[in-house]
Amino acid sequence: MTAKSQAKWTEDALQVLRVDRGFRLDRVSPDATPGYGGTKADGARDLAAGLAQLAEYQERLYAASHGGTAKDAVLLVLQAMDSAGKGGIVRHVVGGVDPQGVALAAFKSPTEEELAHDFLWRVQKRIPAPGMIGVFDRSHYEDVLIGRVRKLADAEEIERRYGAIVDFERRLTEAGIRIVKVMLHISPEEQGKRLLERLERPDKHWKFNPGDVDERLRWPAYMEAYQTVLQRTSTDEAPWFVVPADRKWYARLAVQALLLETLEDIDPQWPAATFDVEAETARLRATL
Amino acid sequence: MTAKSQAKWTEDALQVLRVDRGFRLDRVSPDATPGYGGTKADGARDLAAGLAQLAEYQERLYAASHGGTAKDAVLLVLQAMDSAGKGGIVRHVVGGVDPQGVALAAFKSPTEEELAHDFLWRVQKRIPAPGMIGVFDRSHYEDVLIGRVRKLADAEEIERRYGAIVDFERRLTEAGIRIVKVMLHISPEEQGKRLLERLERPDKHWKFNPGDVDERLRWPAYMEAYQTVLQRTSTDEAPWFVVPADRKWYARLAVQALLLETLEDIDPQWPAATFDVEAETARLRATL
Repeated sequence: MTAKSQAKWTEDALQVLRVDRGFRLDRVSPDATPGYGGTKADGARDLAAGLAQLAEYQERLYAASHGGTAKDAVLLVLQAMDSAGKGGIVRHVVGGVDPQGVALAAFKSPTEEELAHDFLWRVQKRIPAPGMIGVFDRSHYEDVLIGRVRKLADAEEIERRYGAIVDFERRLTEAGIRIVKVMLHISPEEQGKRLLERLERPDKHWKFNPGDVDERLRWPAYMEAYQTVLQRTSTDEAPWFVVPADRKWYARLAVQALLLETLEDIDPQWPAATFDVEAETARLRATL
Repeated sequence: MTAKSQAKWTEDALQVLRVDRGFRLDRVSPDATPGYGGTKADGARDLAAGLAQLAEYQERLYAASHGGTAKDAVLLVLQAMDSAGKGGIVRHVVGGVDPQGVALAAFKSPTEEELAHDFLWRVQKRIPAPGMIGVFDRSHYEDVLIGRVRKLADAEEIERRYGAIVDFERRLTEAGIRIVKVMLHISPEEQGKRLLERLERPDKHWKFNPGDVDERLRWPAYMEAYQTVLQRTSTDEAPWFVVPADRKWYARLAVQALLLETLEDIDPQWPAATFDVEAETARLRATL
């Protein structure tokens, strides 16, 4: 795999971070660096090298469907506790590729209109088109995470949703979308430090919300909700990946590796011309 | 102005590139570098330095409306003949800021549904929200450019649209949106070279469309349509800027400077906390 071959990865990120049968979230250390044998400095270098690779893959992915007939797209789903680094992933991993090939959707608290529909309604509208790299900053998984912890829906409805999600995602993968679901796994200690920093720095106050502390107090309930989600919705078609996130540099590198390996697997090709190249060249030359 | 103070700009881009009364497009040399006294190498260095400035301004712009009550937004409108470098601007200028603060809208040939509405209908839906940097890759100006050249609407309707555009843009600026309208001005010779390159490189074939040569043959009609557009729709609220684009490095630097000077003028501030910082700090510390 690409990410591995040019960097200090000792295993494929797609393998080592994958949630399989019997997975236990409480056995994953948030400050580990699974599959990566390098230091933070190595990580910075590998991230920079990976950006160029990702940018080229993205362009080929886009070209294959815009100049050709490929239907492939990628959908990166990011879920995490507050301050785990979703924003940093968007900025430092996704931000390195051409914005024209990225479709970013941030899902906040649902509006009245959204609440009046099934929970998948608003998500369906933001599914990436062929050739695009879609990114969900939060997603339909909120509806079985905060939805469960804060009892926004009853137990029967939450139960129904696991199945609905699996069916929904299977349908997306059948349409050509590779779904990469990432839980950024931060420790409560690290979160405490990061939230404190937001309170200590006036230029970070706008990122702080008193509700963040309320959610923090429900940590064990959230971990239980995540464990269930990971167990019930990690499928062959759309597996979950748990990325230890106490070290920002590792989390970014790992998500980049997941994207690179996924794109390498798609292996998008420059499409053949759909016009007569010689004839068009002659027609153009006549205007020069 | 920021862009000028830290770089080899001898004049403000907002001044030197602006379309004022009596402007004549045919007097602008597409390979000039107005207002900039540096070389291509200087330009590369200044572009890199500007990226960091732009990224900080964007974050402050976003914060001021998301943590505060500011209504400011920026809307960059990009218009140009094919291959003039709109995509490069998006990638190399806009691409340097956090994707979470950018709303990119590419307007292609209108759909049946869009055609059934007034020409501003589809554009209105993509106006950037407060705090965002919106980018229009093509725009409502297509409806008075290709619309006029290819006679997609009659003369009376085209005439009506100039006024409708001016009213529409005034309304946007009243709502807090700074509109930066850029025409990338390329020469037909340079376009010929760039299109030829697309035909010569198989990895660029997907970017070529036989229609590009058809449009190229209508060059004088397009320049006439641009001249009229610039004359009729460059207003104090929403001026046009003509950016010579034969030198890609200059065009990118100039658009970056236009954005930097616009943001410097907005001067967005980190918003004050809307919560009791001490109380929240105490509440958080109790969880550590």
